[in-house]
Amino acid sequence: MSSEPTEHADEHSTPWFSTDNDHIYSVEEAETYELLGDGSLAQSAKGLGPRPSYKERSTIDWLLEEGAERERWRALHTRRGLRGALAPILDSARMWFVIFLTGIGIGTAGAWLDVLVKWLGDLKEGRCTYGFFYNQVACCSGLDPGEICTEWQSWSQYLHVSSILGSSILQSFVYIALSIMFAGSAAILVVTYAPYAFHTGIPEIKAILKGYIFDTFLSPWTLLIKALGLALAVASGLSLGKEGPLVHVACCMAYLLAKVFRLNHSEVQKRKLLAAAASAGVSVAFGSPLGGVLFGLEELDTFSFSNESEVMWRGFVTSVIAAMSLQYIDPFGTSKLVLFQVTGVSDTWRAFELIPWFMLAAVGGLLGSLLIRLNAAAAVYRRNSMLHDWPVLEVVGFAAITAAVSYLVVFLRVQSSELVAQLFQECDPAKGDYHGLCNPTALWENVFLLILTAMTKVLLTAWTFGMMVPAGIFLPTIAIGACLGRAMGLLTQGLQRAHPEAWIFSACPPDPTIPCVSPGFYAVIGASAMLGGVTRMTISLVVILFELTGALSHVLPIMISVVVSKWVGDALGKDGIYSVWIAMRQYPWLPPDEYRDQGQTAAQIVKPAESLVVIQDEQQGSFKDLDAFLRKHGYHGYPVVRGEKLLGYVVTEKAKGYIEPLLAEDATSGVERRCTFSKELAASQPEIADLSGLLDDTVLQLRKEVPLQLVVNMFQKMNLRHVLFSQGGMLTGLVTKTDIVWLLTQHFPHTGALADD
Amino acid sequence: MSSEPTEHADEHSTPWFSTDNDHIYSVEEAETYELLGDGSLAQSAKGLGPRPSYKERSTIDWLLEEGAERERWRALHTRRGLRGALAPILDSARMWFVIFLTGIGIGTAGAWLDVLVKWLGDLKEGRCTYGFFYNQVACCSGLDPGEICTEWQSWSQYLHVSSILGSSILQSFVYIALSIMFAGSAAILVVTYAPYAFHTGIPEIKAILKGYIFDTFLSPWTLLIKALGLALAVASGLSLGKEGPLVHVACCMAYLLAKVFRLNHSEVQKRKLLAAAASAGVSVAFGSPLGGVLFGLEELDTFSFSNESEVMWRGFVTSVIAAMSLQYIDPFGTSKLVLFQVTGVSDTWRAFELIPWFMLAAVGGLLGSLLIRLNAAAAVYRRNSMLHDWPVLEVVGFAAITAAVSYLVVFLRVQSSELVAQLFQECDPAKGDYHGLCNPTALWENVFLLILTAMTKVLLTAWTFGMMVPAGIFLPTIAIGACLGRAMGLLTQGLQRAHPEAWIFSACPPDPTIPCVSPGFYAVIGASAMLGGVTRMTISLVVILFELTGALSHVLPIMISVVVSKWVGDALGKDGIYSVWIAMRQYPWLPPDEYRDQGQTAAQIVKPAESLVVIQDEQQGSFKDLDAFLRKHGYHGYPVVRGEKLLGYVVTEKAKGYIEPLLAEDATSGVERRCTFSKELAASQPEIADLSGLLDDTVLQLRKEVPLQLVVNMFQKMNLRHVLFSQGGMLTGLVTKTDIVWLLTQHFPHTGALADD
Repeated sequence: MSSEPTEHADEHSTPWFSTDNDHIYSVEEAETYELLGDGSLAQSAKGLGPRPSYKERSTIDWLLEEGAERERWRALHTRRGLRGALAPILDSARMWFVIFLTGIGIGTAGAWLDVLVKWLGDLKEGRCTYGFFYNQVACCSGLDPGEICTEWQSWSQYLHVSSILGSSILQSFVYIALSIMFAGSAAILVVTYAPYAFHTGIPEIKAILKGYIFDTFLSPWTLLIKALGLALAVASGLSLGKEGPLVHVACCMAYLLAKVFRLNHSEVQKRKLLAAAASAGVSVAFGSPLGGVLFGLEELDTFSFSNESEVMWRGFVTSVIAAMSLQYIDPFGTSKLVLFQVTGVSDTWRAFELIPWFMLAAVGGLLGSLLIRLNAAAAVYRRNSMLHDWPVLEVVGFAAITAAVSYLVVFLRVQSSELVAQLFQECDPAKGDYHGLCNPTALWENVFLLILTAMTKVLLTAWTFGMMVPAGIFLPTIAIGACLGRAMGLLTQGLQRAHPEAWIFSACPPDPTIPCVSPGFYAVIGASAMLGGVTRMTISLVVILFELTGALSHVLPIMISVVVSKWVGDALGKDGIYSVWIAMRQYPWLPPDEYRDQGQTAAQIVKPAESLVVIQDEQQGSFKDLDAFLRKHGYHGYPVVRGEKLLGYVVTEKAKGYIEPLLAEDATSGVERRCTFSKELAASQPEIADLSGLLDDTVLQLRKEVPLQLVVNMFQKMNLRHVLFSQGGMLTGLVTKTDIVWLLTQHFPHTGALADD
Repeated sequence: MSSEPTEHADEHSTPWFSTDNDHIYSVEEAETYELLGDGSLAQSAKGLGPRPSYKERSTIDWLLEEGAERERWRALHTRRGLRGALAPILDSARMWFVIFLTGIGIGTAGAWLDVLVKWLGDLKEGRCTYGFFYNQVACCSGLDPGEICTEWQSWSQYLHVSSILGSSILQSFVYIALSIMFAGSAAILVVTYAPYAFHTGIPEIKAILKGYIFDTFLSPWTLLIKALGLALAVASGLSLGKEGPLVHVACCMAYLLAKVFRLNHSEVQKRKLLAAAASAGVSVAFGSPLGGVLFGLEELDTFSFSNESEVMWRGFVTSVIAAMSLQYIDPFGTSKLVLFQVTGVSDTWRAFELIPWFMLAAVGGLLGSLLIRLNAAAAVYRRNSMLHDWPVLEVVGFAAITAAVSYLVVFLRVQSSELVAQLFQECDPAKGDYHGLCNPTALWENVFLLILTAMTKVLLTAWTFGMMVPAGIFLPTIAIGACLGRAMGLLTQGLQRAHPEAWIFSACPPDPTIPCVSPGFYAVIGASAMLGGVTRMTISLVVILFELTGALSHVLPIMISVVVSKWVGDALGKDGIYSVWIAMRQYPWLPPDEYRDQGQTAAQIVKPAESLVVIQDEQQGSFKDLDAFLRKHGYHGYPVVRGEKLLGYVVTEKAKGYIEPLLAEDATSGVERRCTFSKELAASQPEIADLSGLLDDTVLQLRKEVPLQLVVNMFQKMNLRHVLFSQGGMLTGLVTKTDIVWLLTQHFPHTGALADD
């Protein structure tokens, strides 16, 4: 073999590996290849044509993309000279630079979002006299202890309404009006500018990470609207959290940076960056760098990537940088990452406490399942009712309902994050009583109020999560669980105080002034149980929870509650809330759970060869004919057969990228030239152009007798897009990811109920 | 197709799925099949023969085993009647029962090991006057604060040696003599009864989890000797820890329980249990239930199992149960899981501290790499020198050296765990000075002593880890890192105290009585950096470390130090200590890291068809001939070809299990009957027996043009044992796991240096 064609190929591999995604071969470049005009065209054609670009809403061909990435890597590492030595280093440095920037960007965005939300939230109650843009804490800072803050005034104070009736009417009016205004603005922004900025975004990110192409979901517009809308939505007091959407914001940011720094040379590369960004998003949302990495591993299932340790590693670094940025900016002036510090909880716990904890865990699993079902039912109802056409009105109306209901119950009126922070804390006489929560004589009132709050929040959340505003489900779930947990804690504490001599409480210290039961920690248990029931996460949940609360010494009870609540929840339906939404919106996402066939083989789901559109190599005379064929059918690619024999699989975009320049150049000479995908034929007849280099090397072939479970397993593990089935060299059929997704989601009642029209 | 043969097959699937591993088909059972005697034999033969049993030191066929597991599952779920309804529940209950027992067993074993080690360790210093079997703490318990413990006497007190010279000679003599005795007994136990009980065991467990068959490594004898030897070895004061070996003990225990409760019906099932047990082992060793699960995921790579969430879930539950058992038994009476509590560390840290921490992290990465290299060199030297023949003598001699050296330096003399616990604590005047560590005037002496201790420990550990005693590397590594970290902390503290006005220290509080630098936390940073350098773990390490120390508020600095130390270490060689040992002992284990080819295809490593032993179907006349063929060659299985056509792959044990009963039954009639693996042939000629049901459905076929990287990736992800290569229905070659392991480990200098002879 002469070295010439190889060199040519190497020379030209540069544009093919170009970081510019939109680069299309110029006619001159294509011509160079055509000039070779002998059997070695196959050789050079291998690297030919732009990387297939994907249509929005399609699925990437992971193996093909990895192949391209591999070629790019090889090209970088085989260059000669100084440029050759520097290229890999520069490439790697650019990647780490983008990771660094992403981390800082997310940390900063998270911090400013916190500041914005705090200010907007406080605005519902009053304003700072000496500056409109100060929130209550900033307004009152710099005071000596004991001094009363006069700079922050409620609206009635500010507007000098002194009558009790007048002031409470004014206060509630401003509260509800601003709530509606904030929620309405968020909805208008979302509906008008970026419809994909609604909801949490995590289901979409899960699908994207597994190969779904959904670029509008990650556009700069979506980034802006989601961030802004999120602040407004949270401040409006709707029952939603900022955690999930922040992950979406993080991914948008990484996508933008990857574009700016031209790191989007392959879809696989993009997805690795997105995975790191998602980890960083969680890291900032919960102040939980470790939880972020684990969330990426467990919930986003980034472990199934080509190279798990590398992905994990990048997620780790991005998370750390994002958390450091957040801590550096320190939006709340606490210089702490721990958001809901558990304080005053004794380090030890007693065996009898396992009973209320088990009960809490079971309730969490039950209520979590209920919330998932209610939410799915609400979403399906919304889609099929007239509400679907009036999204802004729906948000405004529901914001009004939420505000009106919330204003009546004190624990609903305060921001969820503040409520959770208070529920997680033990009563401390030095800190004062939080809305009567620490009043031991008002035990039953408090329990009733807490349970009422929890139940109302369940209903509000089930409807809110899915409206046209950015909305996370983490914080409402934590709040519901914390209310229930605190109620259970108060009951247990009351019981113990009433019957300190009962044998079951014998483990408690005899001295009644030493507290035995810590209701604050029960709230943590309740939150973890509820989260377990809703999300069905395990490890990442535990880590997030104790990074969130700092309750490390109680990791065991938290783990137990997550275990039990998941067990109970799984008994009522295996899918967590994100899986349910993925199924409802019908994204091509494969659950990582084990699939067990009933003895079927792949033949069960294989599309038989007869029903497939294939390229019949012997009928494909000229380049022109092939081009016409490709234009006629709109598929991602086609199996190529000659007679009975399967030659391989060709990807449409790659073939087009090779043929079209030829056709454009000269409508007479090249166009009519005959071509074949069979190497043997081309070798024996030099006048026929050899296209065998366009065949995809990475496509897998299986036999129909392979157990179905193995096929599903291969799609899950190898992230396949399609598999060819052949028998003795003959094509027998094809299975695509869509078939597998259908197989795995057919059990779910609302599959596809919310799919885009 | 008549339903009769199917029913027969179902009826007979019971013994094939039997939980009794050693069940061999009786002649009668086999005969039933033979009586069918028509084309449907293929149908029934599918479930025929016992599951292939593997030879020790071979690799399991994961796909085949999963197929068997699938069939077993299906058989359980398709039974009719009450038995059919109960069978799956009972099966699942038995599994959870074993997991439960394993967890409790490991927790108990860990607790008793702690007690034993403490007692043996204290015995080197003295004894309890009123009971020989009390350790120092138990002996002195029940005293009022301030009271001096007179019940515990040093050996010189006990033997009434009062002169200073005499007592120090006696003390050091007893110390060294007992050290030698303990170490010697451990070595004798290991060498005589269970040679595989030496070392940490983690490399072997990694290999076993990935499909290596190594049953003697998990035998009850190994369990007993490893546990006993471990206690002796740790108490002897050799530079080793109990953490890794405890994981081995846990796995032995799970293996034993699986056997007792007949859960060993498949190798995959066994491995899932072992993975859970390994997590529980770490959970108990470090008091870190979450770290245990993550260790399983990251280091043991259990994510590549067939069903990651199920494996993770079981590991989670086992870890929790083990940790609860440990906490319930509470061997140290602290009722805490946190072993090395960090106390007195302020919650905040200052930016300037990043400089010493980065330095520590870099040193950790460097020293970790050095330790790995020294250890590998020592192991290779030991194998090739005369020491190989005198293992007990080596242990005794090195124990003497260690004891003598350790007795001279106070920080070496104390048990490593005690040293680490002290180094992690801030100086607190109320608690007294620990061997002068808190004396601010002795700054340089302390720094010198700490660095000397660290360096000595590096040398001692490099040699010890690999001798014929159970030995873990975690604790010595932590101790080395803690010494270095504390030294760095003392230096930084000294610098800050000497120049409090320097601009770099401006973040410190101006009041000199408020401590600014916490040397105790520097020790934690040093430990994490050193561990990062030696093990190259990331997430699990961070989690273990902060579950170990309770330093949750400092998770960010710990993460940073692990990141930097891994970066530095990776620059000097990618492999952690366990990978190095796996390579040296040449276990068939595939590193999960991404492999990048240089453009090669699978053809590079494929064993061509010409060099393979294949079953030529047309030459295999009768059952007798086939049997003779199988007896002649000792391979795991053979590709079956007919003419040019590849029919499939047949596993030796499965074929033997079907043929041998036939041969045993009747030496004349059945034996001479012709048989074929071709379904078509058997269908056309009914006198020829159809063996096509023996062909393995799950074996994958690829083309030689597939990129090498994809092949490696498939072996990694799908846990394959072998792959056939074919072209147009013709066999072109074979690749086995061994080929891939060779490909991935060829870069390492000592590959196979310690392989068993």
